[in-house]
Amino acid sequence: MTPLKNDRFLRALLRQPVDVTPVWMMRQAGRYLPEYRATRKKAGDFMALCKTPELACEVTLQPLDRFPLDAAILFSDILTIPDAMGLGLYFSEGEGPRFKSPVRTAQDVAALAVPDPEGELRYVMDAVRLIRSELHGRVPLIGFAGSPWTLATYMVEGAGTKEFAHIKRMLFDEPKVMHQLLDLLARAVTVYLNAQIAAGAQAVMVFDTWGGVLTPRDYKKFSLRYMEQIVRGLTREHEGRRVPVILFTKNGGQWLEAMAATGCDALGIDWTTDLADARRRVGDKVALQGNMDPSVLYASPARIRTEVETILASYGPGSGHVFNLGHGIHQHVNPDHAAAFVDAVHKLSTPYHV
Amino acid sequence: MTPLKNDRFLRALLRQPVDVTPVWMMRQAGRYLPEYRATRKKAGDFMALCKTPELACEVTLQPLDRFPLDAAILFSDILTIPDAMGLGLYFSEGEGPRFKSPVRTAQDVAALAVPDPEGELRYVMDAVRLIRSELHGRVPLIGFAGSPWTLATYMVEGAGTKEFAHIKRMLFDEPKVMHQLLDLLARAVTVYLNAQIAAGAQAVMVFDTWGGVLTPRDYKKFSLRYMEQIVRGLTREHEGRRVPVILFTKNGGQWLEAMAATGCDALGIDWTTDLADARRRVGDKVALQGNMDPSVLYASPARIRTEVETILASYGPGSGHVFNLGHGIHQHVNPDHAAAFVDAVHKLSTPYHV
Repeated sequence: MTPLKNDRFLRALLRQPVDVTPVWMMRQAGRYLPEYRATRKKAGDFMALCKTPELACEVTLQPLDRFPLDAAILFSDILTIPDAMGLGLYFSEGEGPRFKSPVRTAQDVAALAVPDPEGELRYVMDAVRLIRSELHGRVPLIGFAGSPWTLATYMVEGAGTKEFAHIKRMLFDEPKVMHQLLDLLARAVTVYLNAQIAAGAQAVMVFDTWGGVLTPRDYKKFSLRYMEQIVRGLTREHEGRRVPVILFTKNGGQWLEAMAATGCDALGIDWTTDLADARRRVGDKVALQGNMDPSVLYASPARIRTEVETILASYGPGSGHVFNLGHGIHQHVNPDHAAAFVDAVHKLSTPYHV
Repeated sequence: MTPLKNDRFLRALLRQPVDVTPVWMMRQAGRYLPEYRATRKKAGDFMALCKTPELACEVTLQPLDRFPLDAAILFSDILTIPDAMGLGLYFSEGEGPRFKSPVRTAQDVAALAVPDPEGELRYVMDAVRLIRSELHGRVPLIGFAGSPWTLATYMVEGAGTKEFAHIKRMLFDEPKVMHQLLDLLARAVTVYLNAQIAAGAQAVMVFDTWGGVLTPRDYKKFSLRYMEQIVRGLTREHEGRRVPVILFTKNGGQWLEAMAATGCDALGIDWTTDLADARRRVGDKVALQGNMDPSVLYASPARIRTEVETILASYGPGSGHVFNLGHGIHQHVNPDHAAAFVDAVHKLSTPYHV
């Protein structure tokens, strides 16, 4: 493999010295880019884009050609795993993801099996291998998966939801079935991420989009516990380098101490938590990734720079900070504003690394 | 006025001794009750129900006839104020509230005025007077309003939103205009709540449904600051009794200390914060109202009782706790489960008040 030309991102995740604060954007390959919309049109639909390694590679690299980002992230979807389990994933326009066969009963759960990452999910590993090769060592490649709890919400509800009625009924009334499903998903995510690492992913991130809809007690029992199981099962050294693991629970700001105790290397932080508080609370246990409100990218470039400066000052001097948005970039953002954001992070962070 | 027969709710908000923990449910007059659906059908649409004092009174009292609740809450909507400002509120089926004329520019903001609570909003005060009279002192009546920030989100977006693109662009790029709008709304909410108190409301609650989508810095500047302005301007004594003020920011669990410092009497707490932690953090400054996940009402009555017990134990012994859901009751809940919930709070809380 080609040696890495820019390893700021990996170094910051391990709290090793860097020259400037590294930066990438969640959903950086996405609809706000006209070149992405063109490739997506060529692919037909969203899942066709995910399932065609050449096209997934193409969109993964697009934002890197526009902006001096410090990491690439595999273009894929968290629902590849339930799709490979045979639940019949489809996207209905304007309504988000849906499953033809939601998982509702003990029998439904018993019928599920861990998918083979080099079988049903081989298209993901092929994309990782191709992207890694096409990157030619420019920046590290991030692999990812959804958290067991987050995957389970879609599998049990059968669609996006605001109320979480079906899965919470399962959680409260049939906790054994709920745990069986989550354990299966934790095993599936572990082999899936390890396969991504073997295929070339140099860091991995677990997205827990919906852990924040639980009580603190249930978050620990039904979401964090299974992310910890994944962290314990991951390959942490590959190609002679540590493979950092990032955990991100949206709206999880109240539980950072517990998240930091899982053995992961870094936490993703959304914008509802102050980075200075977060750093004080987790101490030197983990690095932090975040946390600009993605809506700031709707504001003027001057205002974007002010916000970047505020967040850099909030984290303070020293390594251990990867700059990012607190959630995915919105589709109506002007790409020039994203450029101003990336530029501001690099330019304004120099004084914090002397 | 008839003397109050049950003042547990008011006493708990002021942290005075009570026999059992008082309980009510956010959105207790609502679609989960068949009798509510019948009255709503009679009214025609949702706003007609709000604007007809006899029908608003009828649905306010319905849950009290079913369950031994310790408070009634005025049946109304937070959007009565922007509606009275002439923005043209309407509800499109399945899409939530919308405004014909959203507020987007400095000129739009300059054109707005504080509505007269006994003029355009007289129907609300008439409902308060009628309900108070029809209650015959059974339990106290709660008045309410939306927070300035929350009202502004609907007024600027013109509809419900997940991204908050328009209002955040205003907040980031035109903070002066944003502050003008919020100040006007704080003044409008203050006179509106004071008129409700004069008409007979015995406690008031400010609902900040969307404060939790802001950074900690912006929450303090653009939401909490205006709730504090309201708290300072409210009538705090009426009919020889203190009128308690409750502030509730959904997803505001990280900011309880700052909320408790506003001078309010109690904080509403959603289920993502542990009540033991919340109590420790706010000390003896305020009472706490909450915080069962409304989805627990989908579970069996036995499971509901276990959750009630857990939450009572979490708050611990002594007064200062009003039991409630962490958000509004869901429309598909079985009313018998709500009955089991109310009963469990009263029965299981006795040992905490000896």
